[in-house]
Amino acid sequence: MVSLSRRSAVEPFHAMDLLAEATRRRNAGAPVISMAVGQPGHPAPQAALAAAREALAHGRIGYTDALGLSELRSKLADYYRRRHGVAVDPARIVVTTGSSAGFNLAFLALFDPGDAVAIARPGYPAYRAILSALGLTVVEVPVNEETQFTLTPESLEAAQSNAGVRLKGVLLASPANPTGTVTGRGQLKAVYDYCQGQGITLISDEIYHGLTYAGEEATALEIGNEAVIINSFSKYYCMTGWRIGWMVVPDHIVRPLECLAQSLYISAPELSQIAAIAALDAEEELEHYKASCRRNRDFLMTRLPELGLPLLSPMDGAFYAYVDVGRFTNDSMAFARRMLAEIDVAATPGMDFDPVEGNRALRISYAGTYAEMVEATDRMARWLP
Amino acid sequence: MVSLSRRSAVEPFHAMDLLAEATRRRNAGAPVISMAVGQPGHPAPQAALAAAREALAHGRIGYTDALGLSELRSKLADYYRRRHGVAVDPARIVVTTGSSAGFNLAFLALFDPGDAVAIARPGYPAYRAILSALGLTVVEVPVNEETQFTLTPESLEAAQSNAGVRLKGVLLASPANPTGTVTGRGQLKAVYDYCQGQGITLISDEIYHGLTYAGEEATALEIGNEAVIINSFSKYYCMTGWRIGWMVVPDHIVRPLECLAQSLYISAPELSQIAAIAALDAEEELEHYKASCRRNRDFLMTRLPELGLPLLSPMDGAFYAYVDVGRFTNDSMAFARRMLAEIDVAATPGMDFDPVEGNRALRISYAGTYAEMVEATDRMARWLP
Repeated sequence: MVSLSRRSAVEPFHAMDLLAEATRRRNAGAPVISMAVGQPGHPAPQAALAAAREALAHGRIGYTDALGLSELRSKLADYYRRRHGVAVDPARIVVTTGSSAGFNLAFLALFDPGDAVAIARPGYPAYRAILSALGLTVVEVPVNEETQFTLTPESLEAAQSNAGVRLKGVLLASPANPTGTVTGRGQLKAVYDYCQGQGITLISDEIYHGLTYAGEEATALEIGNEAVIINSFSKYYCMTGWRIGWMVVPDHIVRPLECLAQSLYISAPELSQIAAIAALDAEEELEHYKASCRRNRDFLMTRLPELGLPLLSPMDGAFYAYVDVGRFTNDSMAFARRMLAEIDVAATPGMDFDPVEGNRALRISYAGTYAEMVEATDRMARWLP
Repeated sequence: MVSLSRRSAVEPFHAMDLLAEATRRRNAGAPVISMAVGQPGHPAPQAALAAAREALAHGRIGYTDALGLSELRSKLADYYRRRHGVAVDPARIVVTTGSSAGFNLAFLALFDPGDAVAIARPGYPAYRAILSALGLTVVEVPVNEETQFTLTPESLEAAQSNAGVRLKGVLLASPANPTGTVTGRGQLKAVYDYCQGQGITLISDEIYHGLTYAGEEATALEIGNEAVIINSFSKYYCMTGWRIGWMVVPDHIVRPLECLAQSLYISAPELSQIAAIAALDAEEELEHYKASCRRNRDFLMTRLPELGLPLLSPMDGAFYAYVDVGRFTNDSMAFARRMLAEIDVAATPGMDFDPVEGNRALRISYAGTYAEMVEATDRMARWLP
């Protein structure tokens, strides 16, 4: 007899469901343009691919230490020195199986069942699903024009009193998914200081770092060492399917994370770690990819509103347009399914990101090629009433 | 302020700590022989390496559907038809990021905090760590000569009354780590039926399938569909560092697992999925690897007792010798550290597998080469008093 737990009842990640449906249609020969998942159209950098080929030819792919290959951890420390002017001891860097593992490990290591953790609404849906599967209380803090689309000490304070809870954690993403918000250094410092003052652990999701088109890209490490940083090679480094990311944590958190990771993951995939080492030197190639994202963004910022899809938030970073489909539907899920079925354009319903107001929103990823942006919006122009 | 959760206090996986120490020593030039982790000395099959190289040359490595590539799921259904004569719908197969992800997903989907789950003692330590991190009650059921080193209806019944709990789950591994026990079809059916009768969910850990030297290798699928099967490409298929495995589950469990996996893992590494498809056709090469394990086993079965290290359990499957070091120490952890420091031979202290009696035990992996077995035991012969 196999019966389900109560905690298994997490919401689907609709973007992944749409990916599965798009895969089925594509395999059946349909000309699908996928703007549903946050996946770069660009492959992993040439140097990363070459490093992986070399490893396949000469090495055995095995378990690594649970914290990751030491060369990768050292190069990540260089990354912070080079890009942010911050000295980080490689011993504080934990290599993870994508940022997904980073979130799971952080939530397990930092919070006990019943603890309350604040996230932005709209925000990345996996936060909510993982937090709730791990027995944590999700406190959704609305972000909007008034809060400059980010979390603020005021909105966190209000959330604590509205929900009648004391927060144990705050998760802030910048650049943010789906809003594209870039939280500047001053704003980030205000939240950091607020968390410090309240005894709250700040988790800074920096996985869209490298993809900032406007505003100031700051890591919480520039402010202090009392935060947990989560990052990934999936976005700027174009390595989604490699499942490779990292965390930077205070010294005393490393060993407990190592013990959890030993049992929960054993290690991140070794080939991906080897490729990631090389990817860190590929910034020239990756800046071209970033430039192509910027071009897509500039195009969509004009084109989408022309189609009757006004932007709901800035497009300062990451690679998403978050648009209002309220003129056409009050059920963005049905709308997204219909759009995929009728014109083979996949986008993600807002319910993924915002269970309250997402029924009028759609997230469109512009991580693909410019030609895809043009073709998809042309199809939408013909299709929309 | 970053403070730790109570649940972060899991035991280290000492084998991984020894791996980390062995890596440090090897990087410093020491002639380390690692028998600490269960990692084949053989690389991934040629066909798998070729498929990965091909994918790197021609494809973009991206997210797959959360349940995995459909071709891999279909080929896994073939595997059950071919090796076990069982028909399995590919829709019931969930591709996972190693068996580690399989256990985590199964425990989350099947059990709520406080639920009691039985595991064998000695047994794989990550079971205990993951179960406890997820708030589950671990019920350790001693296995020994009397129980033929496996779980039985009688031992499970006794465990329920001794612990004063009603079990929600039973996890049975065959071939088992570290004992090498192979649980035959009749024994497995007895446990399956007992679980059915008691409303207990049976999880069958089959990750050492393919590596059975004596006895009968049965999958729980031969008995019925009311169990959760966990398997992996790490052992027989020699793909540890690729982090790729799978589950077979009853129909009604697929969708909840898919939703959890979407958020917790997004997908298993695509390159590893592509390589795994090819690995399933590489059984001729892998049978050679199995033969080399058998040769190692036959050698160690004689050689270890000669060294004063009697076998604590059968060596019928997997690739471990579990030996009694009580003649030399009552602290197998210190013994393992000393052995690594003094003769560069890494093995795993029994405390990993058995918190009660493991201080007198050591697990020696024979997944490596015959030459390593000879050299390691020669060093031990000179070193042991």
